[in-house]
Amino acid sequence: MTIKAYGAHAADQPLGPLDISRRAPGAHDVQIEIAYCGICHSDLHTVRSEWPGTQYPCVPGHEIVGHVSAIGAAVTRFAVGDTVGVGCLVDSCGQCGSCAEGLEQYCESGMVGTYNGPTPDAPGHTLGGYSQRIVVKDDFVLRISHAPEQLAAVAPLLCAGITTYSPLRHWQAGPGKKVGIVGIGGLGHMGVKLAHAMGAQTVAFTSSESKRAEAKALGADEVVVSRHADEMAAHAGTFDLIINTVSASHVLDAFTMLLKRDGTLVLVGAPSEPHPSPSIMPLVFKRRAIAGSLIGGIAETQEMLDFCAARGIVSDIELIPAQQINAAYERMLKSDVKYRFVIDSKTLGE
Amino acid sequence: MTIKAYGAHAADQPLGPLDISRRAPGAHDVQIEIAYCGICHSDLHTVRSEWPGTQYPCVPGHEIVGHVSAIGAAVTRFAVGDTVGVGCLVDSCGQCGSCAEGLEQYCESGMVGTYNGPTPDAPGHTLGGYSQRIVVKDDFVLRISHAPEQLAAVAPLLCAGITTYSPLRHWQAGPGKKVGIVGIGGLGHMGVKLAHAMGAQTVAFTSSESKRAEAKALGADEVVVSRHADEMAAHAGTFDLIINTVSASHVLDAFTMLLKRDGTLVLVGAPSEPHPSPSIMPLVFKRRAIAGSLIGGIAETQEMLDFCAARGIVSDIELIPAQQINAAYERMLKSDVKYRFVIDSKTLGE
Repeated sequence: MTIKAYGAHAADQPLGPLDISRRAPGAHDVQIEIAYCGICHSDLHTVRSEWPGTQYPCVPGHEIVGHVSAIGAAVTRFAVGDTVGVGCLVDSCGQCGSCAEGLEQYCESGMVGTYNGPTPDAPGHTLGGYSQRIVVKDDFVLRISHAPEQLAAVAPLLCAGITTYSPLRHWQAGPGKKVGIVGIGGLGHMGVKLAHAMGAQTVAFTSSESKRAEAKALGADEVVVSRHADEMAAHAGTFDLIINTVSASHVLDAFTMLLKRDGTLVLVGAPSEPHPSPSIMPLVFKRRAIAGSLIGGIAETQEMLDFCAARGIVSDIELIPAQQINAAYERMLKSDVKYRFVIDSKTLGE
Repeated sequence: MTIKAYGAHAADQPLGPLDISRRAPGAHDVQIEIAYCGICHSDLHTVRSEWPGTQYPCVPGHEIVGHVSAIGAAVTRFAVGDTVGVGCLVDSCGQCGSCAEGLEQYCESGMVGTYNGPTPDAPGHTLGGYSQRIVVKDDFVLRISHAPEQLAAVAPLLCAGITTYSPLRHWQAGPGKKVGIVGIGGLGHMGVKLAHAMGAQTVAFTSSESKRAEAKALGADEVVVSRHADEMAAHAGTFDLIINTVSASHVLDAFTMLLKRDGTLVLVGAPSEPHPSPSIMPLVFKRRAIAGSLIGGIAETQEMLDFCAARGIVSDIELIPAQQINAAYERMLKSDVKYRFVIDSKTLGE
């Protein structure tokens, strides 16, 4: 079946309307009519070949929400009409240690991304959520229990939400813990909401004085403008955990110095230019660590969606028609969005 | 009381004989006649002012073993004649969270180093183990239960031993775990012995083909010459823990790539020139971490000494008279020692 999508035929071309095909649902497949799809910075990196390995045509999008329109014969957990989501991955080997532990994002054989991943389906690589419909193996489909009117704002939870939720859980954010979130953008604004909801003392770090009030409104107990050395110094040695969502190259030492003994600075983005080499002494003298974290597994993504639904947590979004995707990319590059663009998928047919 | 020591009056002067004084033992003090003192690379960095803050005269030495010759009235755990040790620290605040947890090395107020630390005793900073006698608060004195003939080779356990033992324990080296030790010198040769004794699958990394047989003899199950890319690649993604004892600037990515998901690269030395900035992608895509670790606390140092005594583990040493300290420093700079110089303290009086 042929459906409408939005994508690009080459790295140096803007995105535009495309016709793509989706497989007919197999026994374990769920067919989803997409209602909304968030725009993630990874979409831009991939479609513009800023990361290696992009295959064209490229249809990005891995923050997908919609409704089930058909199911395969062996599907028992979903029914037509269910509200569901699809995140960053649509398959994994299912055999390795990471898959066995429900950490499919770290699949030893490599997870299959929702776009630009290997698939037997035409054209040989997966095509993402900037499209009217998607067909996904049931094990990689998530249940959404938010209120119907929240659906557009739920979409970014599938990447921005889980990318911050997973390290917050893994490094045990919660009551009695002091947690920092660096960068108040698509990921960071979710990090602040989630850390606060988990009961942690939540401090937002922003380089911009203008975001101070906004960050408080998101749930930060305190906001630190990272350019102000005295504000930073007042927090030296006090954090259990800092989630750093900034992928632009910057001095990590400014944040490692704020960690307690045994604290961890978790990077969820990788810079295109290396960060200045982190000083080792602040690690040695307080047994601190710098770690990385990648999205989350399927079970944890479901847990995050349920956690958010129970508390009414969604992303702050700007809803756009598909025809504004290229303009949205330019605004995203200038951080001119609060805090996530979401495509209204019904406009794909216009 | 005046005793003989070996130290320097300035950064650019060689070490030579000095007369220093020790306080008379107070109620909680233990007076120790030093039998042996190991030579640590930190001694050289400090005495030559390669690190900031050295005060002169400087008497280095924090790998001390000897015998109790007097005790204060309130000392109950030690008696005259006991064989004891003193490591890198001789005091801490005793009040902070780290001290309360027995992690005095991370004292929030700063531990008092065995040399170059603040003290009310003349000359206002602590003087270390290159001396005939030392007087130390009983809480910082360690019990040694090795055989008497092993005593010289026990000395390096007090720094080189605990510096590798502590991260091996903290990151849970043991049966079923694959552990790497990078660098086969003073610290690394102890790391190999200890990881092996803990039951971990132990792999030694050396840049030098010539150390392959030696590293096996120390207890390594396997030895990897880190210059050989194919040997390194064969271990990609397989280590739970790698302890990196090399403080010269080098590419850390070569080792982070060898870690499993959730594995940790622990640095126990800080380079004078920064390491090339570590790549972030290998951290993000496997939730790996780069951490630091500093010696160990008093309780853990005692545990390590008892662990080693029960298994007959000591350092491999070259025993020298005090008069050869300067020559030993030059050889240490060329890594020309297997694997630790230890000063025979009775030669201080010669």
